[in-house]
Amino acid sequence: MSQGYSPLLQQLIQALQCLPGVGVKSAQRMVFHLLDKDREGAKRLSRALEEGSRLIQHCEVCRMLTEDSQCAICASERRDASQLCVVEMPADVIAIEQSAAYQGRYFVLMGHLSPIDGIGPKELGLELLERRFRDENIAEVVLATGAQERPLVFD
Amino acid sequence: MSQGYSPLLQQLIQALQCLPGVGVKSAQRMVFHLLDKDREGAKRLSRALEEGSRLIQHCEVCRMLTEDSQCAICASERRDASQLCVVEMPADVIAIEQSAAYQGRYFVLMGHLSPIDGIGPKELGLELLERRFRDENIAEVVLATGAQERPLVFD
Repeated sequence: MSQGYSPLLQQLIQALQCLPGVGVKSAQRMVFHLLDKDREGAKRLSRALEEGSRLIQHCEVCRMLTEDSQCAICASERRDASQLCVVEMPADVIAIEQSAAYQGRYFVLMGHLSPIDGIGPKELGLELLERRFRDENIAEVVLATGAQERPLVFD
Repeated sequence: MSQGYSPLLQQLIQALQCLPGVGVKSAQRMVFHLLDKDREGAKRLSRALEEGSRLIQHCEVCRMLTEDSQCAICASERRDASQLCVVEMPADVIAIEQSAAYQGRYFVLMGHLSPIDGIGPKELGLELLERRFRDENIAEVVLATGAQERPLVFD
C-alpha cells in the first residue's frame, strides 16, 4: 500500500515546477522551506503572482513589462526621443539605466531570433519597432543585444 | 535619471526570493518566463501557495505535512503500529513508501539537530516522539535518518 503526499502538498510541488530550472527535488525543497520557515513569504509570493500575472503587460511603446499602458521611461518627457536602444530583455534596460549614462528610449525584443523555438520577427515585435522607425524622429539606434551571432533581420 | 522596474514587477522579483536558492537573477528569469510564456502556471502556483500556506499543517501524530489533522498513513488502520520509522523529511517518507517494503508507521523530524541553526530537540518534536514511545506499543524503531554524524539525543 503505497501512500504519497497529501493532495494539496502534491499540487503545490507540481505547481512550483512551472518555474524554469525547478524540478521535483527543488520543488520539494522549496515547499518544505516555505511551510516550515516562511509561510509569510509564501503568502506574499502568492499575492505577487496573482497581481503580477493579472496586471503586468507590455508597454505599448517599447514592450517593457509594466502594469501601466506605458512604462515609466516611455511616459517620461525628459528622455531623448532621438535615441533608441534595442535590447533583448527587461533586465538589460535596468542594467543600462543603472549606468545612468544613457538618456534615450528603449525597445525590448523580449528574446532573440530563434526559429527552432518558434521565435521569429513577429514574436520580437519587429513590426512595432519598424513603425517606430517610421513614425518617430529617431536619429540614432543603439543595438545593445547579445554579442552572439544573432542576426536582427527585417523582412 | 535612473528608472527601474515597475512597482508590481519589483514586488514579484522580490517575493520570488523567498524561495531557497533563488537570488535576484534567478527571480528575474523566473518572472520573465512566467509573464511571457506561462501566466496560467503563475496563477496555478499563486492558488497552490495560498491554499497550501493556509491549510497544510503537521500531522498531529507523525509531523508529516498534510492538510488533514492526521496524514493518510497515520489514519490508516492497515499499517503495522508496532513498527516506527524515524526520518528527517517528508520526502524520506515518500521514498520509503515507493519501495513498498515497509508497512509500519513514521515519525518525521522535519530536519536534524543543528544547534548553530537553533534546531534542538524541541524543534524536531522529540517530546512528541518520546510520548509515542510511552503511549504506543512500539516493538521496533527504524532510524532512517542521514548517515552523517548527527546524534539523535534525548534529554
